[in-house]
Amino acid sequence: MTSLSPTERTTLGRKRNRAATDRATLYAVLDEALICHLGVVRDGAPLVLPTGYGRDGDTLYLHGSTGATTLRTASGEVEVCVTVTLADGIVYSRSVNNHSMNYRSAVILGRARAITDRDAKMHGLHVLTDHLSPGSWEHARGVNAKEFAAVSVLALDLAEASVKLRAEGPDDEPDDVAADAAWAGVLPIRTVFGEPEPSADLPSSWAVPEHVRTRVSSPEAVGR
Amino acid sequence: MTSLSPTERTTLGRKRNRAATDRATLYAVLDEALICHLGVVRDGAPLVLPTGYGRDGDTLYLHGSTGATTLRTASGEVEVCVTVTLADGIVYSRSVNNHSMNYRSAVILGRARAITDRDAKMHGLHVLTDHLSPGSWEHARGVNAKEFAAVSVLALDLAEASVKLRAEGPDDEPDDVAADAAWAGVLPIRTVFGEPEPSADLPSSWAVPEHVRTRVSSPEAVGR
Repeated sequence: MTSLSPTERTTLGRKRNRAATDRATLYAVLDEALICHLGVVRDGAPLVLPTGYGRDGDTLYLHGSTGATTLRTASGEVEVCVTVTLADGIVYSRSVNNHSMNYRSAVILGRARAITDRDAKMHGLHVLTDHLSPGSWEHARGVNAKEFAAVSVLALDLAEASVKLRAEGPDDEPDDVAADAAWAGVLPIRTVFGEPEPSADLPSSWAVPEHVRTRVSSPEAVGR
Repeated sequence: MTSLSPTERTTLGRKRNRAATDRATLYAVLDEALICHLGVVRDGAPLVLPTGYGRDGDTLYLHGSTGATTLRTASGEVEVCVTVTLADGIVYSRSVNNHSMNYRSAVILGRARAITDRDAKMHGLHVLTDHLSPGSWEHARGVNAKEFAAVSVLALDLAEASVKLRAEGPDDEPDDVAADAAWAGVLPIRTVFGEPEPSADLPSSWAVPEHVRTRVSSPEAVGR
């Protein structure tokens, strides 16, 4: 069972042809991006905040240090929309109107729940750390009791989810192609990691550890 | 008057020290990012969608081809939260708990209004095009009557807005610094533009025009 479960809420209206219903695509988007945008309703109005997250199977973990925490109901749950977007390219068309972006975007709806069980919460922290900085869970000092008590972790099932994407060249009108009066193509967008900057208070004897060094993008990754 | 107008709604609770109240910082975040995340309330639940935008002075223009359009009230307005985030770096600390991200994020609250006046709508399209692809408004075929009628543009005043940012090295506990048991530093994140990919149906005689070519990131911009 690899397809998503589109519902009326996750069917995004126009351009349905851009909807991907394959769970592997959902996972790929979630695993590649670094942050999500977490939407909640506060006093009847929308509020959207950037938030760290991580995925384990069909569970999305969210850092609880956001507006969502204060919005929990008595059940410890809060209705959320989590959106994760990767910008892949700017599409230059022969007409202004057909300019577009190549992108991949996942939208997940549901009720995020605060994790209270100790082991489950520690697992959530592990997943969040592995997403932001793979290898840090093993390399850095672990979470102590005071820190553990102060942090909160939310979990959201990847049940009601959709992925939309555009991954193609310009889609021009035949008349515009025939006129040949403007350039058309895609300017790729890449997110890359630069050279690590050691902390000012780090002894100079430290080399950049492998779990950080191996993340630095190669010139090829920049696509030039 | 360069400061923002923080209200209770845009005061984001914890870590107030990370809030920037300077309008130039707001403009810089909005002008550098490519997409926003537009939050609306639909049937009482939050919905967050990636959306193109552009800024002119203290007005933000939004592509109306989103969920927001269908949510307009009789007045042509819809309550929105527009959030724009730039991820700048991954902060590796000596402790797992103090790992963080460097980022800049703008949150704008208000009522977006559909633009109906012809000249104002055309101006909004111009601003949107200049944001996504500077130079395309002059280079590509202009918007014809049919396209103009089919598109919708929303405008949102930059009145109730806040900026949060983190732009520093690790913030470790003194005990962790003294222990010197883990690497600490920042892995910079850069968004770069790769080599333009001409459309498959573009005659090979076309050179990449200057307004596209000059956007390609230099190796130095990658920060390696």
